[in-house]
Amino acid sequence: MQIPVVRNILEANARIAVELKTFFADRGILVLNLMSSPGAGKTTLLERTLTDLRGELHMAVVEGDLQTDNDARRVAATGAQAVQINTEGGCHLTSSLVQEAVNNLDLTGLDILFIENVGNLVCPAEFDLGEDAKVTLLSVTEGDDKPEKYPLMFHISAAMVLNKTDLLPYVDFDLDRATHYAHALNEGLRVFPVSARTGDGLAAWYDWLRAKLREKRGA
Amino acid sequence: MQIPVVRNILEANARIAVELKTFFADRGILVLNLMSSPGAGKTTLLERTLTDLRGELHMAVVEGDLQTDNDARRVAATGAQAVQINTEGGCHLTSSLVQEAVNNLDLTGLDILFIENVGNLVCPAEFDLGEDAKVTLLSVTEGDDKPEKYPLMFHISAAMVLNKTDLLPYVDFDLDRATHYAHALNEGLRVFPVSARTGDGLAAWYDWLRAKLREKRGA
Repeated sequence: MQIPVVRNILEANARIAVELKTFFADRGILVLNLMSSPGAGKTTLLERTLTDLRGELHMAVVEGDLQTDNDARRVAATGAQAVQINTEGGCHLTSSLVQEAVNNLDLTGLDILFIENVGNLVCPAEFDLGEDAKVTLLSVTEGDDKPEKYPLMFHISAAMVLNKTDLLPYVDFDLDRATHYAHALNEGLRVFPVSARTGDGLAAWYDWLRAKLREKRGA
Repeated sequence: MQIPVVRNILEANARIAVELKTFFADRGILVLNLMSSPGAGKTTLLERTLTDLRGELHMAVVEGDLQTDNDARRVAATGAQAVQINTEGGCHLTSSLVQEAVNNLDLTGLDILFIENVGNLVCPAEFDLGEDAKVTLLSVTEGDDKPEKYPLMFHISAAMVLNKTDLLPYVDFDLDRATHYAHALNEGLRVFPVSARTGDGLAAWYDWLRAKLREKRGA
């Protein structure tokens, strides 16, 4: 009894995701779906990225949370447009929620739209939001075994941001081990060790954003 | 169309949870359902607890993970019985999975059964596993806003273990703020700041386990 309903939900999600892809393609907007455990630093990475690239790229954010508009307010404080979606208990965003949020954004001249998913290393992986690429953040405080234990998320992502490298001296986290597990799941996964707090390593992440945008626009 | 099916799943889960409660009550076994984000330190807390209280209490563990038996192996290395459940992508344990696992445990003389849920701060909250109490771990590296952002988990828990206090000097985490948010959701929530790594603060957690066991046995 469950299976057809789950399939219907995924099919409806996929249908709207295709509409979104066309919508974003027509406008040349690069769309990135950011996923991670709660507290891995998605919002901090966005705050830093929006601030550092403010003069160069026009960026906006769709913020997904169960409740509160804390993250949208943090992001808006950088001067970027932000729309908050509350899932009211839902463990992931859906394409229809994103579509509704996008209707509330001014897309004029937009280069990159970041979608910050609900903090959850499981459920968001199953739902296409019309993005060009999925990006998974992993905080070094979570342990280097996480790609092995939560494989789907890392398998389907284009990039893994290993955040909070400033805490490496104080935790048992083997960067090589985490990267090895992740590459076993996904050979082409790009890995960016960064500290969104100190700014360390962000230059490579920014270069990747620029390259993805050029790729999107066929330049 | 979704609602009746979701209700059926929750009803089936609740029915088996009631059976489990009777089963555990008959045997005087205290059952605790441990929940948290990935990497908050559930397994490390268990390793430490099982080791420190080995001579005093007879304890076993049901380990829930999407994949791998890494955590069951870590727990078994302490000498305790451990059964691994793989949800194969499922974002939480269910009472029927726990029932199956319990059938594979020797319950003779058991005092406490720990159920380590899938690392996820959202989905596990909805599913009763027949436990006496839910315990949510929050790592200080995740940020003090998490009780406010993921309220259900903290609302339904009897205790919150604030783990990784050894990292407090290196992160922006306000213990009072986290506790304030959590108590706004759940006035009676017991809060245990600990470092499962260094052992700091664990004495209060152990006292709570002893008190819960006495309470369970009506002593």
